[in-house]
Formats: sequence, structure tokens, C-alpha cells
Amino acid sequence: KLHCIQFADQKQEFNKRPSKIGRRSLSRSISQSSTDSYSSAASYTDSSDDETSPRDKQQKNSKGNGDFCIKNIKQADFGRREIEIAEQEMPALMALRKRAQGEKPLAGAKVVGCTHITAQTAVLMETLSALGAQCRWAACNIYSTQNEVAAALAEGGFSVFAWKGESEDDFWWCIDRCVNVEGWQPNMILDDGGDLTHWIYKKYPNMFKKIKGIVEESVTGVHRLYQLSKAGKLCVPAMNVNDSVTKQKFDNLYCCRESILDGLKRTTDVMFGGKQVVVCGYGEVGKGCCAALKAMGSIVYVTEIDPICALQACMDGFRLVKLNEVIRQVDIVITCTGNKNVVVRENLDRMKNGCIVCNMGHSNTEIDVASLRTPELTWERVRSQVDHVIWPDGKRIVLLAEGRLLNLSCSTVPTFVLSITATTQALALIELYNAPEGRYKQDVYLLPKKMDEYVASLHLPTFDAHLTELTDEQAKYLGLNKNGPFKPNYYR
Amino acid sequence: KLHCIQFADQKQEFNKRPSKIGRRSLSRSISQSSTDSYSSAASYTDSSDDETSPRDKQQKNSKGNGDFCIKNIKQADFGRREIEIAEQEMPALMALRKRAQGEKPLAGAKVVGCTHITAQTAVLMETLSALGAQCRWAACNIYSTQNEVAAALAEGGFSVFAWKGESEDDFWWCIDRCVNVEGWQPNMILDDGGDLTHWIYKKYPNMFKKIKGIVEESVTGVHRLYQLSKAGKLCVPAMNVNDSVTKQKFDNLYCCRESILDGLKRTTDVMFGGKQVVVCGYGEVGKGCCAALKAMGSIVYVTEIDPICALQACMDGFRLVKLNEVIRQVDIVITCTGNKNVVVRENLDRMKNGCIVCNMGHSNTEIDVASLRTPELTWERVRSQVDHVIWPDGKRIVLLAEGRLLNLSCSTVPTFVLSITATTQALALIELYNAPEGRYKQDVYLLPKKMDEYVASLHLPTFDAHLTELTDEQAKYLGLNKNGPFKPNYYR
Amino acid sequence: KLHCIQFADQKQEFNKRPSKIGRRSLSRSISQSSTDSYSSAASYTDSSDDETSPRDKQQKNSKGNGDFCIKNIKQADFGRREIEIAEQEMPALMALRKRAQGEKPLAGAKVVGCTHITAQTAVLMETLSALGAQCRWAACNIYSTQNEVAAALAEGGFSVFAWKGESEDDFWWCIDRCVNVEGWQPNMILDDGGDLTHWIYKKYPNMFKKIKGIVEESVTGVHRLYQLSKAGKLCVPAMNVNDSVTKQKFDNLYCCRESILDGLKRTTDVMFGGKQVVVCGYGEVGKGCCAALKAMGSIVYVTEIDPICALQACMDGFRLVKLNEVIRQVDIVITCTGNKNVVVRENLDRMKNGCIVCNMGHSNTEIDVASLRTPELTWERVRSQVDHVIWPDGKRIVLLAEGRLLNLSCSTVPTFVLSITATTQALALIELYNAPEGRYKQDVYLLPKKMDEYVASLHLPTFDAHLTELTDEQAKYLGLNKNGPFKPNYYR
Amino acid sequence: KLHCIQFADQKQEFNKRPSKIGRRSLSRSISQSSTDSYSSAASYTDSSDDETSPRDKQQKNSKGNGDFCIKNIKQADFGRREIEIAEQEMPALMALRKRAQGEKPLAGAKVVGCTHITAQTAVLMETLSALGAQCRWAACNIYSTQNEVAAALAEGGFSVFAWKGESEDDFWWCIDRCVNVEGWQPNMILDDGGDLTHWIYKKYPNMFKKIKGIVEESVTGVHRLYQLSKAGKLCVPAMNVNDSVTKQKFDNLYCCRESILDGLKRTTDVMFGGKQVVVCGYGEVGKGCCAALKAMGSIVYVTEIDPICALQACMDGFRLVKLNEVIRQVDIVITCTGNKNVVVRENLDRMKNGCIVCNMGHSNTEIDVASLRTPELTWERVRSQVDHVIWPDGKRIVLLAEGRLLNLSCSTVPTFVLSITATTQALALIELYNAPEGRYKQDVYLLPKKMDEYVASLHLPTFDAHLTELTDEQAKYLGLNKNGPFKPNYYR
Repeated sequence: KLHCIQFADQKQEFNKRPSKIGRRSLSRSISQSSTDSYSSAASYTDSSDDETSPRDKQQKNSKGNGDFCIKNIKQADFGRREIEIAEQEMPALMALRKRAQGEKPLAGAKVVGCTHITAQTAVLMETLSALGAQCRWAACNIYSTQNEVAAALAEGGFSVFAWKGESEDDFWWCIDRCVNVEGWQPNMILDDGGDLTHWIYKKYPNMFKKIKGIVEESVTGVHRLYQLSKAGKLCVPAMNVNDSVTKQKFDNLYCCRESILDGLKRTTDVMFGGKQVVVCGYGEVGKGCCAALKAMGSIVYVTEIDPICALQACMDGFRLVKLNEVIRQVDIVITCTGNKNVVVRENLDRMKNGCIVCNMGHSNTEIDVASLRTPELTWERVRSQVDHVIWPDGKRIVLLAEGRLLNLSCSTVPTFVLSITATTQALALIELYNAPEGRYKQDVYLLPKKMDEYVASLHLPTFDAHLTELTDEQAKYLGLNKNGPFKPNYYR
Repeated sequence: KLHCIQFADQKQEFNKRPSKIGRRSLSRSISQSSTDSYSSAASYTDSSDDETSPRDKQQKNSKGNGDFCIKNIKQADFGRREIEIAEQEMPALMALRKRAQGEKPLAGAKVVGCTHITAQTAVLMETLSALGAQCRWAACNIYSTQNEVAAALAEGGFSVFAWKGESEDDFWWCIDRCVNVEGWQPNMILDDGGDLTHWIYKKYPNMFKKIKGIVEESVTGVHRLYQLSKAGKLCVPAMNVNDSVTKQKFDNLYCCRESILDGLKRTTDVMFGGKQVVVCGYGEVGKGCCAALKAMGSIVYVTEIDPICALQACMDGFRLVKLNEVIRQVDIVITCTGNKNVVVRENLDRMKNGCIVCNMGHSNTEIDVASLRTPELTWERVRSQVDHVIWPDGKRIVLLAEGRLLNLSCSTVPTFVLSITATTQALALIELYNAPEGRYKQDVYLLPKKMDEYVASLHLPTFDAHLTELTDEQAKYLGLNKNGPFKPNYYR
Repeated sequence: KLHCIQFADQKQEFNKRPSKIGRRSLSRSISQSSTDSYSSAASYTDSSDDETSPRDKQQKNSKGNGDFCIKNIKQADFGRREIEIAEQEMPALMALRKRAQGEKPLAGAKVVGCTHITAQTAVLMETLSALGAQCRWAACNIYSTQNEVAAALAEGGFSVFAWKGESEDDFWWCIDRCVNVEGWQPNMILDDGGDLTHWIYKKYPNMFKKIKGIVEESVTGVHRLYQLSKAGKLCVPAMNVNDSVTKQKFDNLYCCRESILDGLKRTTDVMFGGKQVVVCGYGEVGKGCCAALKAMGSIVYVTEIDPICALQACMDGFRLVKLNEVIRQVDIVITCTGNKNVVVRENLDRMKNGCIVCNMGHSNTEIDVASLRTPELTWERVRSQVDHVIWPDGKRIVLLAEGRLLNLSCSTVPTFVLSITATTQALALIELYNAPEGRYKQDVYLLPKKMDEYVASLHLPTFDAHLTELTDEQAKYLGLNKNGPFKPNYYR
Repeated sequence: KLHCIQFADQKQEFNKRPSKIGRRSLSRSISQSSTDSYSSAASYTDSSDDETSPRDKQQKNSKGNGDFCIKNIKQADFGRREIEIAEQEMPALMALRKRAQGEKPLAGAKVVGCTHITAQTAVLMETLSALGAQCRWAACNIYSTQNEVAAALAEGGFSVFAWKGESEDDFWWCIDRCVNVEGWQPNMILDDGGDLTHWIYKKYPNMFKKIKGIVEESVTGVHRLYQLSKAGKLCVPAMNVNDSVTKQKFDNLYCCRESILDGLKRTTDVMFGGKQVVVCGYGEVGKGCCAALKAMGSIVYVTEIDPICALQACMDGFRLVKLNEVIRQVDIVITCTGNKNVVVRENLDRMKNGCIVCNMGHSNTEIDVASLRTPELTWERVRSQVDHVIWPDGKRIVLLAEGRLLNLSCSTVPTFVLSITATTQALALIELYNAPEGRYKQDVYLLPKKMDEYVASLHLPTFDAHLTELTDEQAKYLGLNKNGPFKPNYYR
């Protein structure tokens, strides 16, 4: 297995190309975006923090435990309340605690994690713990940590290394503190973006000998894993939880259907009725955006490159156009393609005064924002996340979040969506940890259909939804097991 | 290859179990349903036909050609007009004629076909002919032939053997006349239901030596092919065109969204606003039905066995219930499951007076209609396709099409949907006929994604839809060929 | 009062101008359209009738009563079943029978009626009878009578004078037989179109001395009454039931939302998804059509003359255009204006091949059909109610119902809508008949708001809908009576 | 006319009963709510203000003019930019400036106004000025003034007396400074809430001799005027602009359709998909809320007292229930009734944990919030405008804005809606000021239909909407003037 130790620093290479499928998780970061701005949890965090670096402080929780590094342990009570509120909207994890607690399916598991550290993550961590696991955790983004939640976790005995506003050096230091510890070696990895996995590959490749599997959450992290796999360097099985059906539908279609409205309202207070909108891309995100705006009385045009998605747009009642055909008349431009340079300077030049431009897609490359950084254009920051870019003739376009993801920057991700993600992660950990020898090779796997269905079923009680069970006769007729899986793997 | 000759008469066996996935083509028959009633084209057919069997008549077209057997060659002009009207709504085939005509990609192809014989099929056949193929054709259903179209085809020189109202003996006789002909041997099969393929296997197994491939259209036919393949008896490559993305979306989601309303209105004149409806099954068909009824002001409940589809129903705004929870209060019950005995006598007993019951699903097994054939219940035929079943206390339920497919029996399939099917068939024939040696083995294949996309693209001009093209830079960024395929195979 | 006797034959004048508001009842005829074709009930009527005129037959029902004139008394049983089925969908009238039967609020009323004679009318007549009234009835349209229903009514003792296919002479003869009868004089008039009222004015003006009121159902009839009133010639109070809120909403918005889809499907089998449609007029009918088509995936444009309705169209998500801007590109043109020459020859010349043109509006003047009767255009009847009009260059437009009302000609009016109309008529009769002296003058009145609300309330049980009652405190706070009316009269 | 001087201080009485119709303007205050909190413009106002009362400061603008009293003249530039941005979304006022500027229809008008002082009001004031009017202005709410806008107005020469955070004494002082001025007497009143009118009645009744009319914007102000009129004390004509069709549709249906989503998201981040919601009241506001939530995938129940609205709810696809039937199962409760005590303690006691309760209706009486102020319940403020009320068993309900209007407190009113209001006000002023003697008596008038249509038409260009014009022939046929009005006055 030693061939996998020669792991060069491929970080640059990793980031050169996103996955072809191109859909992103809402709750993840691509590695360079571990330094992206991240707004959603900002409101709860005190702004009057002292300036001492957490790394320089002596830290202890009320039981005298000091194996953590956070901003301020005194915020623990406040964080605890946040966690309790989140618990109420994460019924699936709570159910998992109850159902699986007796058998402790993660007994013996030593999980090292690197994710956003939020109230929802805390519910996940405390669930893993209830199922028997030990956890050490770092943040996958230097801005996204909710300090009070980190405090509550530390107070509860978790070894957390994270605070809001880490430097890049802090970032890697925190990760290192999670894995480089005397007398404790992880046997499971839960990663979001691949930075933790990368660090272990680079610094502690031998650690993989004991690791039973990696659970990866983000598009970028998954892409890195596939590259490793292709290169024959993946030493352990990895589970791609990003592409589970349930998670994809919620992250993209259902979540974006709401967040496009929310993001636009919070930033611009625009009235949707009667507005002309062009949505670039009619994948799941585009479908969600289009449906919401149509319902609010907007007139929506769609651009597409894929004829199958294009035909769906037609049948759903949207005029399929090239961007140039409508760019002069639209009030709002939304990109949802996963592609780059979908809206370029030439398009921006032709937009009408007051046109709003934003991105709901994969990364900040969809709108060529760089092309707007020229001397003849004036930028005016009118609100947080809202810039007016002003042409010499006085025309303004309203650029949101500087072309970064609108729903991450200007909206919030509902806890319910995060619940689906977290439940998927927990089940993937249980599956990999308990899988019989040989079920999973050194490869990247999709979540088994049956577990995907299980995640969905755990969320049905939220809606007081009652599933029908197959009779024996029906199951036989359909050739199905009564407990699923009910659909072929390719079914979406 | 001789092992594939030992083909037993497995007809009974074939029909015992439908495919697990369970979605049916709108334009197909399962083999036993080659004798099903079939209404859509009835209106154009004269009812005053003489009683002589076509098999007993001397037949000749105006050029003296007599290699066909149809009802009445005099109807050719009327049929020609029908074909011309159909041509206007099948732009993709017409485009295919133009684009591919120069190169005659089917030059040398000898296609034997067994499908519904309608104006749309005629457009397909004349397209195949324009592309270079010779065609001989029989009907896949004893009722569905449009006699005037068959006449127009015969007049145009096609060897057609089909008429409305064949006996079962006629049915096989017609098929035999297509294949058992001096000096001509087919090298391609286009089948809908598998009866033609079955007949060749049984009677002329050696014929497969010259056959380059089978294109199969129906769920049942595809199921039969998979069984042959499993049993190692499939001697040639076969293309499953039923499961192409484009065809599935149109046959199921888009077509049913319209036909559920149409079928209910034509049979019952029911007002949808305010009606309580339960839809059993939230696959593509169920999604289409629910969306349409919701839009018309109905209150829709959904039943599901699959938690993923169930969760989608919730997020789309439908209460997920067990049938029994709402059966007393609903005004309309619609099955779309592909399952059997979804609505049973116990449910029917509890329905309220006037409740409408119908099936949009796979086959006529979803509603246990047989259970209503008991002495205490009175059946009253109030209209074509509409029965009142009357309980001893006077309660009536309104049963549509005796539980058979509502949209086949009581609605029409739009030509546009048939256009997609026919285009897919034509492209599959071209692909199999021209594929280099070795690309396809003796197995069942899905239509390549790229051809699926091509079918879609041929239908975009109908909507005056303008597709965007990738720039070189974008294609490189996404790792895609500029001409597609644009999505992985599993993408729906 | 004699001045009102000098009633000239103003028939021509009556019809010159429709009411300004311009919305029509679905179930009414303008007087010239008492000779319009009328399709909806055709299916139930036997076509093998003998050719003897009913006027020449000796007629008796099973009890020996012969005071009626219909087609064939033997069809009574069949008609009775039709009535029973209609009863199930007219719960409000049935409730009215129960609630008001004890007190017989129409005891002593002698109602002469002139309406479409259908199963629904029969339920109304039998309700009036149950409430104490005597009834004599003629048809308001020469084609619309359901012969079997007339038979059932005659068998049940009603003096009905009507059959399908009357001559114009028959038409007036039947009306005359209703009123010109020894020893019986009407004291209430229920009219639909104003022909009965007109006849009495012209022939038996003295009869008005005993008449307590007129209930009029149709736009045209109401318009005639307002003209009479203006001219000082209206001798009795009249109730305009056409403009009640409930009736208007159902006749226009809710009914058209469904019948536009139904009418288009039954005539053309068109697929709605992706179609471009222009709807002329955004009143209630236009709103219903637009909402339905949008929901089915059509792209809908709207034309309007009224800026308030225009702004509503914008806010509801429709592009507001002039007809000429989109006429070349649309697949379907629908008029709903109440205006004339909305679609003229110049527009028709510019439509694309295959464009469907139809009218959902007030009368058959919206599309200038006459302009298509020129020698260079070929008309081809392709189905009942469907004409292809063919230009010299081969372009066809698909004209539905020759520009007459699509929903009357090619769809059916749901019984539930007719129930609302019939209930409104019954209540108006009760109100006028029982009103204390002086409450109503010789003028045209709208249905009192409270009765409008009562009609609505009687239909709520159909939907198992539960109304909330005001508490005393709330009623006082709002300054309302707990039993209504709840809104000012102008509220819609 | 002296009888109108004996105007007692009826302020208490005024506020006892809202109008029966019960719909409120979004941009107004009832008089007691001149002290209500008001959030929408807060973000732009500096928080570091000094503590000196504006009344105690010497104030001068850059031209040396000191006839105003505001917070800080230095903010004028910032305010000017706000006004310029607002101008872009108020095209109708800008068009009015252009169209009417030549003739100066308000030349000689001396307008005293009392409204919210925001950027939109500034656009109105500057339009009035451009049309020839002189203006003096006070705020109608002690919290709602945008200080920077007031500064810009003062800098521009307007006599403005208003700042954010006035005391009640300040409030009346500012009003008095507007009217009690040497050598200037108002001849027009523009009021929002009736406080200004009240003050003049009370303090300077003789001033009415010169006043040509009052334009009143709010429900409460209109109610006060009707009371004055009833009591014979209204000395001048008054225009009720609150009930114009255009304004009503936008304030209620279109605005609420968006603000219900926005208000809920900003306060609770709730995911709408699959949520069960009960909406109390199905007037225009309820219709807007229901449509929006249904479109987002919520399951919506409706309660109603009015059977006509109830029937509409049914036909639109909502289950009509009594509150108690669903109170245990719903996730969100929304009141839109204009009534009081619609949600009472008993209902609140039965709600499930986490239920969100909010009010979109007339006033803060719809939810009996007072009943929650009992010792056993704990209130926890979790965010601005969000309280958790906690039952002894731990159950929490989430109460928004303490039962005040959600869309005023937690959302923003789009400028486009305010544009409609402001344009209506401007036109009403022009109409009253220029009306020939005798057209308007001492009564309360609705905006003439034609002007209502004109307001709408001025807003169509925003949507690039193209109105169709009647031909002469059509106008004659319909009996209409080609320039409108196009509908009867009662048409909505």
C-alpha cells in the first residue's frame, strides 16, 4: 500500500477543474473557498471580541478539560440553546439517536471531522457520540464557525479546534491539532472539501492504515477523491454523500426554490411580480429558481446548452433563448450552470439600468466579475453584499455577493436541509464502519440506495407523512423487498 | 449461435411479470393487450365496412402492386391527408429526412416492423424509406390500425398487412406475411410488444443470422428481451428505446399532466375545482397528475411506498397519506403505481357516493376490478368507458375504462409525444444498422445519451427554442465535448 | 300603467348592443342565438326519431294528462335517470327543498319559464314545485332541449312545451302555449334571453298586472330589461341574477379555467406544454384561461385595453402585448373580450401555419369570421366544430366552432356551475314573490348580497367546507350582523 | 359653516372602531400607531446621533434657509442618493412631472402634508413642487422618518418638520409648525391617518375656509372622514384614495403575496416546502398569502366567515376549515381578517411545539397577544421581532412582531407599491384642486375610475407593457369612450 504515500501537493491541480456534473453542496466549501466569506450565522456572534488569538489563550471547560481551542468558553450556554433549537428541526438525527443507541453502532469509532461548525453540526457530533463514537473536529472554512456553538461543544467535552476568523495558518493548525494527538488515532474521516483528507495524505500517510473509510460531503472533495482513485492513490473506501438523491433534491431543487426569493429580497427588496428574468441553466437549481419566480408572477426566460434540459424548460412553460436575445430587456439575471463565464462583460454592457445580476450556481466563475474591475466603471457598495456597478453614462447594474453564491451569502440554508445532509453523513459513517471486510474496496462509492431511502424515511415524520407498505403479494409482483430499495440505482 | 434457436414458447411466462420499474409506454401494447381495446383513432374510421375479410380479397394499388393486405385501398386519399397532418406535428422526422437523406444511412436496410399502424407510424415508415430502408409492416394490436392510413401506405408501395378488427389468427398471419416472403429477408426488426420478435424466434430462428439488431419500444417487449438476454438466448443486439430520458419524460410526466384532465373531462365532465383527489404513486406519472389537478384547484393527497418519492410529494405540497385515511372523503381516486391491487374491494366499499375511480398506471391490475364482479353489485354502463357500479344501498362509484389505462382509453396521445417516440426509433435503427462491428454485443442497450440529446434537439424548433452553444473555453472547463453528451448516463 | 303596453317590436334594437360590462352567462342565449347550435347534451338523445312534428301528435302521459308537447313520452324513464344523476350534483337545490319545504315559500306562485330544458333545469323545476309553485315551461333555444328530460317532466305532470330541433315557428308556438292557457295566469316569470318576457309584452301586456316579478338570467335579457326600464316601460320589478358575485365567478373565472383546456383538447388534441398562446382580454374569463394554460406549461401573452386589468396581467406574470407583436409566433389565439373584431383578417393573414383560433368571449363577433369567407380561402371541415381555413400558399389556420363560444360548443358546463345558477334563480323567485309591497319598484335589481352569500353557503357542503361563525364580540367589532351580509355590495 | 367648528376631541372615539371593510394601507398608521414601531427604513439611519433635540438646534441649509426642523442637515447628500434611487422605481411620478409640468396643474396650490417621510415621499413632494405646489410637511409616525431624506428635502428648500424618534409632544409640535405659519395658509391637505386633519379641525377650524380638499390615504383616516361626514361636520370635499382599485390590489394581493414569504423567512428562516399552514381570512390579503405559500409547496388551510370568499377558497384548492380542526397540526398560523381575537389563548394552548404565529391583517388585534402575558408563560426574545412564548411543559410558539403587521414590521414594502400610492395621491390632489365648482361637495369621494385607470397606465411602462387601443368602431360597439373609463365603478 505504500504507493499511496507518495502524495504530492496537488492542491493546485485539484482545484483546476470542478466535477463535470457540476452541482455543489450548499453546506460545503471548495478548498480555496475555505477562505470565502460566509454569512449565515453571523447574527448570533458577538462583535466585541477581544483580540487575543485563541491559540494564545489557556483554555479549560468547567470540568477542567482543555483539549480544545475555541474563541470563548463563556458563550457555551448561548451555544447550547442554539443547539437545542436546531435539535427540534433535525428530527432524523434525534430518531437515529433513539433507534441506534442501544446497539451503539459506532462503538470504537474514532471520527476526525472537518466541516462548518454550526449548531447543526453540533447535533450531528452529539449524535455520533451518542452512537458510540469519539470525535475530534476542525472547521472547513475560516469564517463559518459559530463561536458560541464551538463553546458549547467544548464545554460538552468535545475536542473542537475552530473559531470565526481564523487565519490560513490557524486553519491548518486546527486541522493538525485534530489528528496529531498522542495516544489517539482516527479510524474514520468525515470531510467537507477534502482539506482534512489532503492534510492526512500529506503529513500522516501511515494513518490511513487504520482508517476504515472517508465520508466526503462536497463536490470538490468528491472530485479530489475521484482523482485520487483514478491515480490509484486512494488507500481506503470513500463514500460520496454529495450525490445521494435525497441530498441533491434538497440542496438544489427544493432549497433553491426558496432561497432565490429570499436572497433577492434581503439584498434588493425587489418586487417579483411582472419582472422579466433570465435564468441561465435548467438543471435542478435552475428548475427551482424558475418555478419560484414564475409562481411569484415573474416572466422567466431560460438558457441551456443541453437539449434535454432545454426541452424540459419548454414543456414547463419557459421561453428558451440565447442570453443575447433578452439581455437588453430583463430586470434580473441569474446564473445556475456550474459553468464559467456564462455572463461576460459584453452581456453586462448591454443590460438595462437597474438590472440585478446574481449567481446561484457552482462557483463564483459564472459571472465574469473580474471584467467589471476596469477604470471606467465605478463600484459603489450600497449594502452588505450589494454593489452598484456604474457605467460612464450613469447606467447601474446591481451585482449581488460579487458573483459568489447568492444563497450562501445572502440567504440562509434551512436547518431541515442541513438535517438531511447530516443524517446522510451519519449513516454513511455507520455503513463504512460496520461494513463486512470486502464490501467496499479502495474506491469512491455512492450511498447505497437503501440508505438513501432510509434518510428520506427518517424525515417523513416532520411532515406527518404516512408511508404505505407493500403487501407480500405486491412485493412479489414487483420483485421487490418490502423494505426497499424500491428503485434502481439510476432512478432520480 | 445455435443455442439461441431452442426457443420455447414462453409467451405465458413472458407475461407473468412486468418489469420492475413498471412504467409503460403510451403507445405500446403488452402482448395480451394486442387484443385490448384501443380508442384513440376510432373517429376517422368508417363504420360501414363490408364484412369480407381482407385476407379473402384480391388487392391491388393503382400501380398494380398487390404485396399488401388491408381493409380498403379506396381510403388511400383520406389516409394521405391524415399523414400530411401528422407530418406537420412531427418536425423532427421531417428534419431527419432532410438532414440524413443525402447519405441514405439506411441504404440496404430491410426493416420488418410491428407497431400500431397510425398516421404517425406512416410518417416514421416513410422517413425510414427516405433514408434508404425497405419496410414490411404488421400491426401490434388487432384494434388500433387506422384503415385509411394503411390504405395510403399500400398505395404508396409499402407492404402493409393490417386492418382494424383482426382476429388473433389474422394477427399472426399478418406478421407471418411480413417475414415469410420469397427473396427478401429482414436485417432489422422494429418491434412494439415483442410479438414479432417472438414469432421470428419461434418460426424462423435462422433469420437472426442476418439481423443486425432489434429496436424495441414497449415495457413488455423490453422485459422479454432482458429475459432472453439473461437466459443467454439473445442472438443480436437490441436497443431499449423505451427508457430513453426524453421519451420517458414525455410519455409520463408531460403527457399525463394533460391527459389526466382530458380523460376525466371527456368521460365524466367533472369540475376539478375544490375536488378532493387521492393519487396513488408519485413517480413521473403521479407527479404529472398531481401537478395538473393542483393547478386546477383540486386538493390532492398522495400515497407512496418509496420514501424518496414520498418526501418529494411532501415538498411539492401534497399530504402523504395511507389510502384508508382519505378514502371516505375523496371525490376521485387515481392509480399510477405500476403495482397491483392498489385499490381493492375494501377501499371501494368505503368510497363515498359518486366517487370516480380510474387508472393512469402500468396495467389494468392496479384497481381490483374483478372484485366488483359480485352479484350484489349492479353495473350500469352510462357512457362509453364509463360504468356506474351500484351498491345495494344505492351508492354508486364511477369506474372509468374498467380500470384500464385512462389516457389510452379515454384521451388521445398528442402527436408530439408520438413524434418523440418515432424519432427515437428511427435513430436507434440508424445506430444499430451503422454501428461498427463489435460496438454492440448480443445484449440489450439503452439509447446512447448523445442520441437521446439529439432526439430532444430535433424537437426544439417546434418551440422556437434557441439552444446555447458552449464556447471552447467552457467545454474545456467542464471537460465536455461541445456537441455533447452533456450529462452522465444516469442523469434524468 | 298602460304606457307600458305600447311595446314595439324592438327585437332588432335589443340585439344591436350588448351590455357594456360584457360578460355572458354560460347557460344563456342571446335571442338570435335561440337558434344557435348547442352541443353539450347531444350524446344522450336518440337519433332515430320519427319525423312527425310533436305539434301534430296526440300526447298523453301515463296518468292521462296531456297538457304538454314534447318529442316522445316513452323516453321518460331515461330522462328520469338523467335527472337523478343531476340531483346528486345540485346539492344546494336539494337542500333548499328540504329547508324551505315546510313553509312552501312559493305556495300560490304560478311560474312561467323559458330556459334551456336540461336535466339541471328539471331539478330546478321540481324544486320550485316542491316549494309550492306551479310551473309551465318552454325552451329558450331550439336545439338545446334534452328530449328525454322533457319527457320525464311531462310524465311527472309538468306542462312542458319543447323539443330538440324546433322551427322558429315552433319556438314561439311553445312559448305561447305556456302563457296562453285557459284559467291559469302566471304571476312570476323566469326568463333566459328575454324572449318570453318579450312575447308577453307584445301579445299579453295585461298579463303584467298580476305578475309580481321577472327573474332574468342572461346578459342579453338583462340588457333588454335595462332598456325597458330606461324607457319607462318596465311594469314590474325584475331581478338581474346574471351579475350576482357567485354566479359571475363560477360562470367566468372557475368554469373557463377548466373549459378552455377541455374545449381545446376535445377539438384539436393539442399538447399545451411549450405552446405560445395569446389571450385577448384579461377579465374574469381571460384570467381563467391564462391561469389554466400557464399551469399546463404554455407561454401566455395577454392583450388588454383597460390599464387596470393590464397591470393585473403583468403582476400575474403575463407579457402584455399588442396582438400584432406576437401574432406571427403564437400557436393559439383566444378571444375573451366581449368586444367585436378583436381578431381581424389582417391578423389571420399573419398567423403561422397550424395556428388555432377560438373564442371564449361574449358572442361570435370577436373573431371576424366573415372576413374568411372569401374565394381565395378554402374551408375544410375536419371534425365537428373544427374547420381548417387554407390560404393559397397552403397555410392552414384551425378555426374552432366558427368563432362561436368554445365552451358552449365544444365543452360541457359542469353541473355544479349550473347548480349555482339554478339556486340563484330559485332564491330570486322566492325573494320577489315574498317581498313586502314596496321593497321592489318597477326597476331592475341585483340579487341582494345576503342572498348571494346564501347561494354560496348552500354549495359549501359539496366541498365538506366548514364556515367559521362570528362571535358576538367580533360581529360588534366589525359592525356586522352575524348572518351577513359580510361585505359591501360593490365587493367582488 | 360654523357648525363644523364645534369639533370635540374625538380622538379616542375615532380609534374605537376600524372601518367595516377592514383593509389597511401598507404605508400608513392608524393614529395610535403614529407611535408604533416601524422598521423598514432603519438600516440607512446613523445610530451615532447626538442627543440634542432638533427643536433646540439652530438649523440652516446651505442657502441660508432655516424654515424646517430635522435631525442633521449634513446627511443631505446621502438622502439625495436615496431619493435618486427611489426615482428610478417611481416612473409614474417622473412621467407625471414630464407630462403635467408645462401646464403646472398645481400652480397656486399650498399643500400641507403629514405622511411617512421616506425617499418615496420625497419623490412625491418634489413632483408636487414641479407641478407648481408649495409644500410643508410633517411625519405621521414618530419612528418612520428617514433622517437623511428629511435633510435632503430641507436642503432642497422644503419646509420639513420631522425626525426619527420624536416624542408625542414633538409630533404635534411638528404638525403645528407646518400649519401655523405667518403669511402662508394651506389650501390642500394630504393626510395619512387623519392626525393633521384632526389638528386643523381642533386648532384652526377657520383654515378650512380656504381649503379646497383633503386627500386621505389610510383606512383610519378615511374612517374618521366618513364619521365627520355622517355627523355633518365635514367642511370640504375629501378624497378616499385608500380604496382605489389599483392601490388595493397592490397593497393587498400583490404585495402580500411576496411579503408573507419575505417576512417569514427574515424572521424564522422556515422552509416552506411541506409545511402545514392555516390562513385565517380569504380576502385579498389572504388570497395573496395562500397563493404564495401553495406555490412554495406548503399545504394551506383556510378559515372564513363569508361564504362567497369561502367558496372561492374551495375552488382555488384550499380546504376550508374551522381553526380548531387544524390547530393541533399546523406549523404556521397567519391571520388576515381585519377582525379581532381570531386567534385566542385557547387556540394558542393547542398549537404544537414550534408553531409560528403571525398577523398580516388589519391591526394588532387579530391575535390575542395580551392573553399570552400570563405568569405561567415565559417570553424569550430570540431575535428582533421574534419571541418564543414557552409553556410550562416546554412547548414553544414562535410569535412574530408581537402580533403586529408582519409585512410592516419584518419585511419591506416595495417602492413600486409605494409609487402607486404616491401617484394616486398626486392625481387626487390635482383633481380636487382643479375641479370645477360644485363637482365635489362636502363629502368623501372615491377616486374617479378614470383616474384610477390613469394611475395604472402610468405604471405599465415599467413592465414594457403595451396597451391596446379601442378602434372607433369597437368603442361605439361597447358604448365606451376610447380613453376610458372602461369598467363600471363597482368593477374590481
